[in-house]
Amino acid sequence: MGSSWQKDPPCVGAPRSNRLARVKTPAHSIGVIGGGQLARMMHTASIGLGLNLKLLAEGPGVSAAQVVHDVTVGDYTDLDAVLAFAADCDVVTFDHEHVPPHILHALMDRGIAVRPGPDALLHAQDKVVMRRRLTELGVPCPAFEVVPDAAALAAFAERHGWPVIAKTSRGGYDGKGVFKLDGPADATLPFDGLRPGVQIIAEEFIDFTRELSAIVARRPGGEMVGYTITETVQTDGICTETTTPAWFADGQQALELIEIAELIATELDVVGILAVELMQARDGRVVVNELAMRPHNTGHWTIDGAATSQFENHLRAVADLPLGSPAHDPRWTVMVNVLGGSRTDLVAGLGHVLSRDAGLRPQLYGKTVVAGRKVGHVTVLDDDLAVARRRAHAAADYLMGVTDE
Amino acid sequence: MGSSWQKDPPCVGAPRSNRLARVKTPAHSIGVIGGGQLARMMHTASIGLGLNLKLLAEGPGVSAAQVVHDVTVGDYTDLDAVLAFAADCDVVTFDHEHVPPHILHALMDRGIAVRPGPDALLHAQDKVVMRRRLTELGVPCPAFEVVPDAAALAAFAERHGWPVIAKTSRGGYDGKGVFKLDGPADATLPFDGLRPGVQIIAEEFIDFTRELSAIVARRPGGEMVGYTITETVQTDGICTETTTPAWFADGQQALELIEIAELIATELDVVGILAVELMQARDGRVVVNELAMRPHNTGHWTIDGAATSQFENHLRAVADLPLGSPAHDPRWTVMVNVLGGSRTDLVAGLGHVLSRDAGLRPQLYGKTVVAGRKVGHVTVLDDDLAVARRRAHAAADYLMGVTDE
Repeated sequence: MGSSWQKDPPCVGAPRSNRLARVKTPAHSIGVIGGGQLARMMHTASIGLGLNLKLLAEGPGVSAAQVVHDVTVGDYTDLDAVLAFAADCDVVTFDHEHVPPHILHALMDRGIAVRPGPDALLHAQDKVVMRRRLTELGVPCPAFEVVPDAAALAAFAERHGWPVIAKTSRGGYDGKGVFKLDGPADATLPFDGLRPGVQIIAEEFIDFTRELSAIVARRPGGEMVGYTITETVQTDGICTETTTPAWFADGQQALELIEIAELIATELDVVGILAVELMQARDGRVVVNELAMRPHNTGHWTIDGAATSQFENHLRAVADLPLGSPAHDPRWTVMVNVLGGSRTDLVAGLGHVLSRDAGLRPQLYGKTVVAGRKVGHVTVLDDDLAVARRRAHAAADYLMGVTDE
Repeated sequence: MGSSWQKDPPCVGAPRSNRLARVKTPAHSIGVIGGGQLARMMHTASIGLGLNLKLLAEGPGVSAAQVVHDVTVGDYTDLDAVLAFAADCDVVTFDHEHVPPHILHALMDRGIAVRPGPDALLHAQDKVVMRRRLTELGVPCPAFEVVPDAAALAAFAERHGWPVIAKTSRGGYDGKGVFKLDGPADATLPFDGLRPGVQIIAEEFIDFTRELSAIVARRPGGEMVGYTITETVQTDGICTETTTPAWFADGQQALELIEIAELIATELDVVGILAVELMQARDGRVVVNELAMRPHNTGHWTIDGAATSQFENHLRAVADLPLGSPAHDPRWTVMVNVLGGSRTDLVAGLGHVLSRDAGLRPQLYGKTVVAGRKVGHVTVLDDDLAVARRRAHAAADYLMGVTDE
């Protein structure tokens, strides 16, 4: 394993509230809200740790519900449903960031630990809150402004130059809710059909040369580990490829990016995985794009390429167990997403790609194949980066039906 | 990763029967009979492959039933229960070798693939059948004889020298059904309370210097991979420690042992994992002790120390998917079993041992702690063998309550 990065917990003061006094440490029973592939891969990681993972799923057949024993089907926006689900959980965590804050506060009021907590999670739910807080913390961000209307958006763009980025403050994911506006004629677009309570945030367009991801795991007491910085490729707003380690002319810059993620995790009191999506501009400057407070697509490489996966460290963090080493394998690790295409029987497809490449590491999500939907990923470790990329894309292309070879 | 060993499938003739014509290849739905920790760890391995693992469990709370979604509680000796369970499985495999052959044949008659098949499995169920077949194949075994009574047993011992080993032909595991007899006065012991249909087999006592394990995975068409030979320590008949790779003065001997396992797997038409337990005598000679046709305690190290775990390769083999690389990590891999002791909260125990040793790889089985019962294992990878052993035993001793440090 290559370089690792682990930091002793900082001295922390008394907890801000004693609402958590009843929390069992370590947690034995972990409730996961949301039944997507992140919850599915958390379940894989939970088994060896002897943790009892319970799932609140959107439906009986969703990705994680196919593999978890203890499944409750229910609506995560229904307070009673969530309370009933969480009643015998030691801690509740998430497959996604869409659970309304008032539900999370209600859980905490009943003595159930929520990790990450609602005050932290708000920064992954609301981009205005996130941008304001990160700016306060001195974290590099694109120039931004909350704009009430198209005229204010256009004025922002005139000051910073077109094109400009507009985002909805809430509800966006996988590129949804993000607009690239090329000129004044586009300024009304983000406001079309805007839901009540959702704001538009204008952001300086970063003509980035690459995107990066900094992932840390943090326990309640502050213990953290940071994964190796990963280079990511987003296609139409969806992460399609990651390469680890990201290459840096100056290795110090990689450490600084991990420190930014650490600063954010500490200041926002994140518990679990924090993924910081970053953009690197042509002048070398790196700014924060988005935050996620759960295992993240840009960290899937850790299943095969790190000593401890992001899923296991997320569970260890939320259970308040010691974190595992984030050290990366000495080889290049390339992860490529499998998006739904013309091939519908992915298990049969595995038969082909594994016979061609015995070292391929697949993850299938058990989801019905729908065009463009994330239905799996493949990871390759290789001493030669070009070979790793070719192998991973060859497998993903076959599974997507792009090729028959 | 270190040395690997992979062999192309031999040319095979037409299948001996067309009973398997309806088998879906690769299998998508895998029924596992038996809900112990082996099935639990198979489930972990099944998730990424997108396989649908269904469990026939002895009870609702057993080890694997805690984590598998699709659980049927039923008796594996009840033909109707097994048939109902298997009706929508593409293939059936096992957590243990106790399913009666007539039930397995009944499954096959209904077009359900059974892997390993009953004719292969019989050699793991009946030691007389196994010894006779291995001897026919020229595989080195201890001298043996089926003995009808104490007098014949004593006569065998007089020819081969006391002490002598006596075993029941069926029903033994973890050292049960095995007797070490020191002299003529002991000769009646194996026959006390012998169940009808069970024979006693007398075996030459091998005063071994060490025990070894050769594990191969084999697909229906004959494709095989062989894991690195492992040295194992058995305590009171239970595997308590393994070290990989086993050290050999002559590396050629390790390859010969893998070839013995390969020969057995091929000749017995094993599908899935075959574990060959071996004893090495003081003169260097190695003989076969037992066979198992499922993932085996001596292969648990592969979860953390091999490119593909024995659990994943068992599933790939029974699903007829290409096998994964068995290559071992270049470090020493030491696995130590956690047996039930005075510590009952193993998850809390993990909190301690992981804080002391961040590189420790634990597997907890979710089982109620009962004295001497296998409730988990820990694996350590280290460049220094003595350090690996010390780390693994320190963690296991704490989890067993042997120490509080």
